[in-house]
Amino acid sequence: MNKNPVNGMRDILPKEMALRTYVLSVIRDTYRAYGFTELETPIVESIENLTGKNGGENEKLTFQILKRGEKLKIEGAAGPLDLVDSGLRYDLTMPLSRYYACHNAELPKPFKALQIGPVFRAERPQKGRYREFYQCDIDLFGEASNLAEIELITATAAALKKLEFNAVVIRINDRQLLKDLVTYAGLPVERADEIFILLDKMDKIGADGVIEELKAAGLEEAAVEKFLAAVRSAAGKEGTEGLKTLSETVYGEEGSPVIRNLTEIFETVTALAGGDFTLSFDPTLVRGMGYYTGPIFEIAVPEFGSSVGGGGRYDEMVGRFIGQNTPACGFSIGFERIISILLDRGFEVPGQGEKTAILLEKGLSREKVTEAFRTAAALRKEGRTVLVAKMLKNKRFQKEQLEAEGYADIREIYESPIER
Amino acid sequence: MNKNPVNGMRDILPKEMALRTYVLSVIRDTYRAYGFTELETPIVESIENLTGKNGGENEKLTFQILKRGEKLKIEGAAGPLDLVDSGLRYDLTMPLSRYYACHNAELPKPFKALQIGPVFRAERPQKGRYREFYQCDIDLFGEASNLAEIELITATAAALKKLEFNAVVIRINDRQLLKDLVTYAGLPVERADEIFILLDKMDKIGADGVIEELKAAGLEEAAVEKFLAAVRSAAGKEGTEGLKTLSETVYGEEGSPVIRNLTEIFETVTALAGGDFTLSFDPTLVRGMGYYTGPIFEIAVPEFGSSVGGGGRYDEMVGRFIGQNTPACGFSIGFERIISILLDRGFEVPGQGEKTAILLEKGLSREKVTEAFRTAAALRKEGRTVLVAKMLKNKRFQKEQLEAEGYADIREIYESPIER
Repeated sequence: MNKNPVNGMRDILPKEMALRTYVLSVIRDTYRAYGFTELETPIVESIENLTGKNGGENEKLTFQILKRGEKLKIEGAAGPLDLVDSGLRYDLTMPLSRYYACHNAELPKPFKALQIGPVFRAERPQKGRYREFYQCDIDLFGEASNLAEIELITATAAALKKLEFNAVVIRINDRQLLKDLVTYAGLPVERADEIFILLDKMDKIGADGVIEELKAAGLEEAAVEKFLAAVRSAAGKEGTEGLKTLSETVYGEEGSPVIRNLTEIFETVTALAGGDFTLSFDPTLVRGMGYYTGPIFEIAVPEFGSSVGGGGRYDEMVGRFIGQNTPACGFSIGFERIISILLDRGFEVPGQGEKTAILLEKGLSREKVTEAFRTAAALRKEGRTVLVAKMLKNKRFQKEQLEAEGYADIREIYESPIER
Repeated sequence: MNKNPVNGMRDILPKEMALRTYVLSVIRDTYRAYGFTELETPIVESIENLTGKNGGENEKLTFQILKRGEKLKIEGAAGPLDLVDSGLRYDLTMPLSRYYACHNAELPKPFKALQIGPVFRAERPQKGRYREFYQCDIDLFGEASNLAEIELITATAAALKKLEFNAVVIRINDRQLLKDLVTYAGLPVERADEIFILLDKMDKIGADGVIEELKAAGLEEAAVEKFLAAVRSAAGKEGTEGLKTLSETVYGEEGSPVIRNLTEIFETVTALAGGDFTLSFDPTLVRGMGYYTGPIFEIAVPEFGSSVGGGGRYDEMVGRFIGQNTPACGFSIGFERIISILLDRGFEVPGQGEKTAILLEKGLSREKVTEAFRTAAALRKEGRTVLVAKMLKNKRFQKEQLEAEGYADIREIYESPIER
């Protein structure tokens, strides 16, 4: 038998686990105070849902589960999909949309959902990235107005603040605005997703790199230049200035509901932030998934390169299950990144409570043992953590170990005081 | 796409989820007070560990995961095992033993582990039994004495009591005692596991049924009768009387460490129970898994037929990973059964806190919206749950729904008092 965790996954040791449990409780309590209610979906989903094109690149990374019993016919199988009937979920958004499609008659309207749990992607194993990792999502179904975006952003910022993430920056953009930019520039809107994927590389290859790749994709040179010029004219400006610039360029004097909506979100959230965090309009923000339909956002922490969370509006996903669309908007916290930053910072989990260890001499009489357990029970009633253990031969080492685990109060129980 | 959960698994709706989260927090807090520390292992395990004979019948129910990429060779595959490299864990005990085998150098000694999470078994779907369900286990590694059993039993009884499970009965027995009984009766000890599986049917088919099946298995009639006579002579007796009877029958005047150990556990736990729960020696108790080596126990709740938890000592499992055995003892709470009983009882989750809903008139100005969010933030700081939502056309229905969700304080925000 193999004592190691399966390739690409890992065991969580007690110290990290204490941090994870604490962080989850902070996130859970914060979101609950905003009226989000927790739910759970199975870790396993039907294979048709995992190959339904909602997951983009992640679908290629799905762990697939073999059919069982008579249903499994290896001979004559044309490919893997003939052998499987289900797989492990790659995110929480698709299962949640399925859940809402299935249960909406029993759910309040609007429905504010909180879902926490592991997701699975068979990526090439690499340092700090694992094939099983936790996601922590809040989503709002049935709210078409920007109340949804405002709640999601402020609730998530509040959760992060409680975890001592100060001065976070939340970048926002809008998928509809990006599409309108494509049309304005004379680029083909049916290739918008492809264009966005290239625009998303701005961080890595710069504007000139993006222009090169767009041209290499066979897009018209003048249109590409026009597209990028508009994006760059709005990037890096203070407050809503970039939005105003783009509005004039793309929509002219009339403006657009897209701009008014984004400006409202920007101004309301900024007013509510009270300096705790910053909002920044970023016309180069794309977000990977193809399903977004409106505002999108991403959280950055100054000390950490990539994002620690993000989300957006995806009004058309529930419709893929039941034919009727429902306004939907979500925010996902990058839980593993949060944990990794807190570990780097040496974050101390607060309020572990007082800890007592009661060490029993070897061969102690039953009466003394029972008495020790009674003492332990009484101390636990007072809210203390109490460990009862055999006294080891190397008592000094044992006590050092216990102290390192936070047992400040160590009591030794002997049969008679003389033996001490 | 398929809006239903995958066959045999289920979505958890918010109301049940609130109960589940509460029950988990009670269990977690109780076990922590006993010095157990939480950990986590991957949901996926190597296929060799899932087919290593530690899981008994459960191994046949394993969900297996297809190999990926070049590793998958469908043509020429002799059977399912050629196509898979991993699978979903069927319990928490095997992964925990692997974990201890892998990380014992970094863990305190003795190590008190708490593990909570879903496990998977591809059983035929039936009412109330699902293919994904939670287990909640505590285990103690490195404690050879019955301090382990005493801690596990009292901690679990304490957790159940906090969930208003009163008058639970904990049945105990010992696998070594059962083996010695087999030898005493003249039955072949190498067939002990098979004999135990038949003895375990006592509840369903009665003693005569067990005798018939043992004979049908080709075991000698006189030995079978002797075995069952001894078991029956000790069953149903008060306190440790049954233990004394069996001791005289099997071990004679000399007695045995097995009996002394079981008597100590019985007496100490009974003394600590203080009437909160009852211990009962049951010589017919077997527990399904083949890996138990010593004392075994099972919790029954009067109103519920089958057990709501159980466990025992399994000193030889870590050795299957690293060649060296480690004393190990565990107790698993049947989490889904606990939830199902509490739901039947109409158990109310305590301490949900005060809840306020703020309803915003349609078309409210930005100033009023921002003000409403500020009010919400202030109320949340006071510990209230606050929902901000658009006022629906059918306001009366909306308010009824909110009241049903526990929003006792509902505030309506209008642009001007006149419109009210």
